Amino acid sequence: MKEKGNCLVAEAGGPWAVINASLYGVIEEARKYRKIDKTLGSRHGIEGMLNDEIVDLGKEDRKTIEGLKKTPGAALGGTRTRLRSSKPVAHSDLRKAFDVLKKYNVKYLFYLGGNDSMDTAYKLSYAAKEIDYDLQVIGIPKTGDNDLLGTDHCPGYGSAAKYVAASVREAGLHTESMYTAEPITILVTVGRNTGWLPAASALAQRGEKTAPHLIYLPEVPLNREKFLADVEKTCTEVGGAFIVTGEGLVDEKGRYLEAEDDEVSKDGFGHPELGGVGEYLEELIQKNLKRNARTVKLDICQQSAMHFASKTDLNEAIMLGRRAVNYALLKGKSGMMVTLQRKEKPYHCRVGSIVLEEVANKERKFPSQWINKGKNYVTPDFLNYVRPLILGEVHVPIEGGLPTYTRLKMIKATP
Amino acid sequence: MKEKGNCLVAEAGGPWAVINASLYGVIEEARKYRKIDKTLGSRHGIEGMLNDEIVDLGKEDRKTIEGLKKTPGAALGGTRTRLRSSKPVAHSDLRKAFDVLKKYNVKYLFYLGGNDSMDTAYKLSYAAKEIDYDLQVIGIPKTGDNDLLGTDHCPGYGSAAKYVAASVREAGLHTESMYTAEPITILVTVGRNTGWLPAASALAQRGEKTAPHLIYLPEVPLNREKFLADVEKTCTEVGGAFIVTGEGLVDEKGRYLEAEDDEVSKDGFGHPELGGVGEYLEELIQKNLKRNARTVKLDICQQSAMHFASKTDLNEAIMLGRRAVNYALLKGKSGMMVTLQRKEKPYHCRVGSIVLEEVANKERKFPSQWINKGKNYVTPDFLNYVRPLILGEVHVPIEGGLPTYTRLKMIKATP
Repeated sequence: MKEKGNCLVAEAGGPWAVINASLYGVIEEARKYRKIDKTLGSRHGIEGMLNDEIVDLGKEDRKTIEGLKKTPGAALGGTRTRLRSSKPVAHSDLRKAFDVLKKYNVKYLFYLGGNDSMDTAYKLSYAAKEIDYDLQVIGIPKTGDNDLLGTDHCPGYGSAAKYVAASVREAGLHTESMYTAEPITILVTVGRNTGWLPAASALAQRGEKTAPHLIYLPEVPLNREKFLADVEKTCTEVGGAFIVTGEGLVDEKGRYLEAEDDEVSKDGFGHPELGGVGEYLEELIQKNLKRNARTVKLDICQQSAMHFASKTDLNEAIMLGRRAVNYALLKGKSGMMVTLQRKEKPYHCRVGSIVLEEVANKERKFPSQWINKGKNYVTPDFLNYVRPLILGEVHVPIEGGLPTYTRLKMIKATP
Repeated sequence: MKEKGNCLVAEAGGPWAVINASLYGVIEEARKYRKIDKTLGSRHGIEGMLNDEIVDLGKEDRKTIEGLKKTPGAALGGTRTRLRSSKPVAHSDLRKAFDVLKKYNVKYLFYLGGNDSMDTAYKLSYAAKEIDYDLQVIGIPKTGDNDLLGTDHCPGYGSAAKYVAASVREAGLHTESMYTAEPITILVTVGRNTGWLPAASALAQRGEKTAPHLIYLPEVPLNREKFLADVEKTCTEVGGAFIVTGEGLVDEKGRYLEAEDDEVSKDGFGHPELGGVGEYLEELIQKNLKRNARTVKLDICQQSAMHFASKTDLNEAIMLGRRAVNYALLKGKSGMMVTLQRKEKPYHCRVGSIVLEEVANKERKFPSQWINKGKNYVTPDFLNYVRPLILGEVHVPIEGGLPTYTRLKMIKATP
C-alpha cells in the first residue's frame, strides 16, 4: 500500500476568474484523506518546483481558504514557463523538479491550467514513471479560451462569457444611443486562436437589430472587402454597428492582423502577444467607410471579473478540484485530466477524465457548424450550448463599495 | 399666471450609467404638476428639436419608465451636436429649435448633459428671453468625467469610479499573480482633459504594494524619463507595475500622446477623439525597459456598466431629475443647472443650483493639491472625497444570467 505523503497543487498559465475555486476544491477535499499528510502549494506553477518555492497551505487560516472560492487572479501565482523536453529525465529542468518533489515528499500533484500546462503535467507524470518515483499527477482544466479537448467546456469560460456578454449588452445600449455621432464600436476579446469567447457575446443580443451585430472569429480568415461590406450594410440598416472580434484574427494568408513579433512581446511559451486588431479594424473602417469607430479592449478584465462571474462556472470549478483529488486518492488514477461531461434536461455536468497526452498542446477550435453562412455570426445551436454556462450570479463580499478578495500568507513549507 | 404647457426632456453628450435615472426622476416628478400637460422627450438631445423628433413619454407603460432607473445608454439617444451661436435668434439652428418648441407647446425644458450640453441649454434659455418666448430651462448635470463647475460631483462619476476601481482591483490581482511573465498592465480610463476617473482607481489599492501603483492624470504633462524611472522603480520593488492613465495624457509641450487629428476622428464638438495612449506607453516601456506590458481599455464600458453601478450615484441622479422639475415648477427658476452640495457626517447631498452661463464650456480640473509630490498618485484627501460616492450596489434585474434592460417605444408626440 502507498505510503503517506504530501499533495502539491499548482496554478499554471494565465488565471481565469474561478481558478482559485478549483484550488479551494483541491484543498478542501485533500483534508479528508488520511493518506495525505500536508497540502502544499507550488508558487507560479512549475516555477515553484524548479526554484524550490513551495508553501504550506495548511498554515493558512480557514477564512482565507474559504475566500479563495471568490478571489480572481492565481492565488499561488500563474506562469508562462513550461517544462522543457522530458527525455532523458536527467535533463536539468525535470531533475530539478523531481529534486523538489522528493524533498517535500510529494506523492500527489494537482496541476491547474490550459493546454500548455497539461503538457507540463504530462511530462511530469511520464518522467515519474520512468524514474520509478511514486507520483500521481492529475490535471485540472482552466481556461476561458475554452479550447481544451475532451471536456464539454473549461472552467473559466462561463464566467468570461457572462462578463463579456453583459459588457456587450451594456456597451451596445450605449453605442445604439450614440449612433448619430459615434456609430461603430469594436470590442476585442481574449482568445489566441479560438473564437469561443467572442462567439459568446452573441448572448447579449436582445433582437436582430441589437448588439452584437457582427462577430469575427480567429477560425475564419478575415476578408477585408467582405468585412467592410458587412459593416456598411449594418450601418445602413441599423444606423451603426457593434462588432465583436477575437484578438487573434488572421488574414487570408494566415497572418495575424497587427501581430507584433519582436522578442519582447513574445510570451514564455513562444506565442506572439497579440494586440492591435481593434485599432487595425478601426483604421480600416475609418479610411474606407469614413465612419467613426472606437475600440474596447477588456483584456485581463475578462479573466478576472469575479464581480460578475457565473455561479455555474464557480460550482463546476470547485467540483473539478474536489474530484481531481478523488481520482487520485480513491481511484488511484494518474496522468489524467478531469473533464466536464454535459447531461441535459436539466443541464448538469458529471466528471469524467481524459489522458493528459491527448490534451497536451492541442487546441479545440470553434466548430465550423456553429458559424453562420455569412461567417460573421454564430448559430442558435451554439447559443443553446453556451446558455447554461453563464447561469447564476456569484455574490462577492463588498466593503466600502468594492469587492474584497483574499490573499494567501505564503508560508514556506518545511521539508 | 403661467399657462398650462408641456415639458420636454433631452439627454445630451455621451451617456453615463445613471443618465436614465435622472430621466426617470424628471418624468416621475413632472406627473405631479397640473401645470404640466404632457411630458415629451427630444431624441438625441438638441437634434430632436432641430429635426422635429419629439416623442410622447406619457405613452410609455409604467414598467418601462420604472426600468429606466437601471438602464444604461441614453434612452432618448445622446448627441455630440451642439447649438451654434445664439445671436441673432434668427440664426437657423435656434429658429428651428424654437419652431419645434412652439409646435409642441413646450414651456419647460430639462436638459441633461455635461459642459458642452450646458452651453446648448444656456443658449436656449438666453434666446427664449430674447424672443420673449415663455420657456424655463433647467440643466441637469451628467458626466463621469466629473468636470462640471459648481457641483460637488456629477451623476455618473460615482458609478464609473466604482466600476473602474473594481476592475483595477481584479485586474490588479491578475497582474500580481503573473509578475514573473507579464509584469506590467496599463489601464486607460475615459476622461478627455481631467483626471477624476483615473484618480478614482486609487480606491482599488489594498496596501502600498498593490494595484494601482502609478496613476497619471491629464493635468500633469508626462515627462518620459520620469515615467520610465517610476515604472522601473516599481518593477524592482514590487515585481511588476499596474499603471492607470487618463486617455487625454499630454507631453510637456501640451500635445496629446498619440492623438489622432484627422477630420474623421474628431467628434461633433470638434474635440479630437483620443486613442492610443495605452499603446504609446506600452511601446515606450517595451523599448526602453525591455519589459512586457499590456493595455486594458474599458472605454464605453466605463460609461455603461450598470451591473456594478453605485447606489449612491443612482439615487443622486434620480434626486437631481426630480429637483430640476421642482426648481422650474415650484421655484419658477430658469437658466440654472441643479447641483449637488455635499454635507458631512454622515455624507449626504442637498440640491443647489448655479447659473448655466457659469458652467457652459468650462472644465473643472482635478485639484493640484490632491496630486502627490511625485505627480504619479493621488492624496488621501482625494480618497476621502471619492469614497462615499461609490457606496451601495445597484441590483439589476437578471434573466438567463444577464442583466435585462428596458427600451422606450418612442411614440411620436402629436402637437
